[in-house]
Amino acid sequence: MASAQSVAVARQRAAAALDVAGIALTEAERAQIEVADFGLDRLDETGLQLVVYVNTERCCAKELVLFAGQTCPEHYHPPFDGTPGKEETFRVRHGIVYLYVPGEPTAEPVARPYRSEHYTVWHEIMLGPGEQHTIPPMTKHWFHSPDGAVVSEFSTQSRDEYDVFTDPEIVRVPTG
Amino acid sequence: MASAQSVAVARQRAAAALDVAGIALTEAERAQIEVADFGLDRLDETGLQLVVYVNTERCCAKELVLFAGQTCPEHYHPPFDGTPGKEETFRVRHGIVYLYVPGEPTAEPVARPYRSEHYTVWHEIMLGPGEQHTIPPMTKHWFHSPDGAVVSEFSTQSRDEYDVFTDPEIVRVPTG
Repeated sequence: MASAQSVAVARQRAAAALDVAGIALTEAERAQIEVADFGLDRLDETGLQLVVYVNTERCCAKELVLFAGQTCPEHYHPPFDGTPGKEETFRVRHGIVYLYVPGEPTAEPVARPYRSEHYTVWHEIMLGPGEQHTIPPMTKHWFHSPDGAVVSEFSTQSRDEYDVFTDPEIVRVPTG
Repeated sequence: MASAQSVAVARQRAAAALDVAGIALTEAERAQIEVADFGLDRLDETGLQLVVYVNTERCCAKELVLFAGQTCPEHYHPPFDGTPGKEETFRVRHGIVYLYVPGEPTAEPVARPYRSEHYTVWHEIMLGPGEQHTIPPMTKHWFHSPDGAVVSEFSTQSRDEYDVFTDPEIVRVPTG
């Protein structure tokens, strides 16, 4: 697990990235930016920073920050509580994101994630500012940004504890 | 109903406001910005410009643009198709918005909308950049911006045709 110090640094860095992207946060939001290292303790490679704006039983919206070189590892959202599971739309606000979904594997994918042997979907979609993609429930996906990016996520209820990761070493609890 | 020319002008003006707010749109989105005058043909006073990013059976996200002096008139979202009706969160991205909801009427509200006799909820909430408010279904609300604003709306499915407006003259069909 990342140290308290590295979490604090990542939080500050994410706040700065959101500033650069022109996204306003309250002071309380800034102080509570979630830092996820997915239990691998290599935040620079496998990690994600999040600001959760709203998450009710019916819908959810977040801002996601990827630092240069970071990957959010492969996972899917299963059904829970009688719902079909989380449906989500990623909309890039700033930077470039490579999203990987089921389909024809891309011959030379941009991303080469840490522990890439635990990644199974390799159909690459490049998304720039103003571009978006919707992921249905039960669909494996992962994403990477070579130079850093800010992404808005619009979705149904988010229950991270139910996410299923392909890599058995991964644990989805907030690092900080 | 607003003329085709005034709709085209409003669309360009909304695109410019989104640019200033640092919000990236694709060319296709820019060309399809929705302009609503709510059937009153006084777009400068009663109007709203919208970009719908996603609207599935389960969730919806939009960007809303208010020009200086515009008001989105009082309405609520009733149940439909076995759902409780639309739940929405407004998050201000740029500018200042005055949101009006049920509660103690504000003594000196900032907004003085056209046909204000058809407005019944006057509890004022000021929202600046990074501030947000969630409106449950069946809750009357309206909003106004004195100097112009951009607002993200995160919600359950949007079905504008079911919206119930307090002012009997209002028709919620896109003007353009």
